[in-house]
Amino acid sequence: MRLTSFDKNGRPALGFRVGDEIVDLEAADTGLPRNLLGFLQAGPDAFDRAATVAAKAGRALRTPFEKLKFHPPITNAGKIVCLGLNYADHATEGGHAKPTYPSLFMRSRTSLVAHKEPIVRPRCSEQLDYEAELVAIVGRKARHVAEKDALSVIAGYSIFNEGSIREYQRKTSQWTAGKNFDSTGGFGPEFVTADELPPGAEGLRIQSRLNGTVMQDANTSMMLFDVRETVALLTEFMTLEPGDVLVMGTPAGVGHARKPPVWMKAGDVCEIEIEQVGVLRNPIVDEAA
Amino acid sequence: MRLTSFDKNGRPALGFRVGDEIVDLEAADTGLPRNLLGFLQAGPDAFDRAATVAAKAGRALRTPFEKLKFHPPITNAGKIVCLGLNYADHATEGGHAKPTYPSLFMRSRTSLVAHKEPIVRPRCSEQLDYEAELVAIVGRKARHVAEKDALSVIAGYSIFNEGSIREYQRKTSQWTAGKNFDSTGGFGPEFVTADELPPGAEGLRIQSRLNGTVMQDANTSMMLFDVRETVALLTEFMTLEPGDVLVMGTPAGVGHARKPPVWMKAGDVCEIEIEQVGVLRNPIVDEAA
Repeated sequence: MRLTSFDKNGRPALGFRVGDEIVDLEAADTGLPRNLLGFLQAGPDAFDRAATVAAKAGRALRTPFEKLKFHPPITNAGKIVCLGLNYADHATEGGHAKPTYPSLFMRSRTSLVAHKEPIVRPRCSEQLDYEAELVAIVGRKARHVAEKDALSVIAGYSIFNEGSIREYQRKTSQWTAGKNFDSTGGFGPEFVTADELPPGAEGLRIQSRLNGTVMQDANTSMMLFDVRETVALLTEFMTLEPGDVLVMGTPAGVGHARKPPVWMKAGDVCEIEIEQVGVLRNPIVDEAA
Repeated sequence: MRLTSFDKNGRPALGFRVGDEIVDLEAADTGLPRNLLGFLQAGPDAFDRAATVAAKAGRALRTPFEKLKFHPPITNAGKIVCLGLNYADHATEGGHAKPTYPSLFMRSRTSLVAHKEPIVRPRCSEQLDYEAELVAIVGRKARHVAEKDALSVIAGYSIFNEGSIREYQRKTSQWTAGKNFDSTGGFGPEFVTADELPPGAEGLRIQSRLNGTVMQDANTSMMLFDVRETVALLTEFMTLEPGDVLVMGTPAGVGHARKPPVWMKAGDVCEIEIEQVGVLRNPIVDEAA
């Protein structure tokens, strides 16, 4: 199943993908949860019911996917946990040793932007970089989960462009500032349930393209800490809750490691594609003066 | 005004302090917001109305403060942003240079515990440390706020024991893991409106006490980045929203910098006191096997 948060008269509504269209779930059945977090809290039965409802929905409830205006799949997550240096080649290009534990940081919801919405280059720095990342989204409350059970915690997957202002990321040892500029984190367009993908979303090609040029080209199997291991590591110390967003790190090829560095600028278009998950596309604009 | 989130039949309710008692706001007036985040989103008028309601409340709606079971003042904040190394003496004791920009990281709500609730020492590490911190809570949406206007963004203050598992804080360059263990962040007991305190909550004595022994003893005026400057710095890159929690860093005297190091352990009681704001007290327990 593939669900998306789309704009309906200025507010987010949830759509269910059927072919090239989405069904407006709220219009089709007012008894369903109103957003993805609600679905995740309600559990698998709610998704199954949505599938049944969507299959029966008439033409009046359907809109072509390409015509939609989007919202991020989840904007009210309890937490957004990100892994840094999770591909060996990206760790190396940044001058870091191959890690033995994931470098963890968090993003806030104010940093998110939806598919097709602009990623904003701030006034205070030109060093706006892209990062293609797989997203795993938590489907059940979990603590102390063994690796063998870890994939049962993940309800589905999405795509992230973990836009980073490198100058601020490196102002101190902590990356948080550079990772939390408003409207720098592309997220979406769809939430794809885990059963649509290989276990752990492994073996999927992941790419970033800037104005059509391939900048990162890797495979999710190259992650140092895969989804299974990440869930086990995180739940050693924290409770994961439905809707929590895990942003799984980026491969080599980011702009700041290039010579000369490549920064995203107004007029650019950045796409992140993950095989079977979809394409996340964001234009770049300058922050208003 | 002083508000507190207390336990009412297993769920949080909001109380308004009158002398040594709290008035159950929800029982006194069902038209008021149901939690502190709701009050902050509603704005100053809601607080004024609560004060009027509380002043008139009869004995049946009052409970002695000391008899309450508490919840953290806010558990549904959009973000919890923490400053590290924000007192020069603490930066020095950790071997860090005096910073020119605050080290920022985030905590998640799953790490929070209320006043009088136990802080949990995890199974995987004994290195549980205390950190006395002032909390500033955001009262209005804000971006690009100049220092001169910054205090208007803060609705009030509280207290945090920024419990840290040092071993995990230092597993990588990023501190997030060690700062996000379940039930390690004491928060409360009260939200104190800004007008009750000096501007920016400056000039207040801040202490931690472990089993009655003073471990940290400083003054909020010793912060390198005060509340005013912190709001200006943060809003350069991110939108602050009502209910966002800013945890302002800790002075010298933490356990890991002592020789030999002092770790909190089961049976200990840790208190954080900030002059005019209150006392946050948490017993320490071991995580269940």
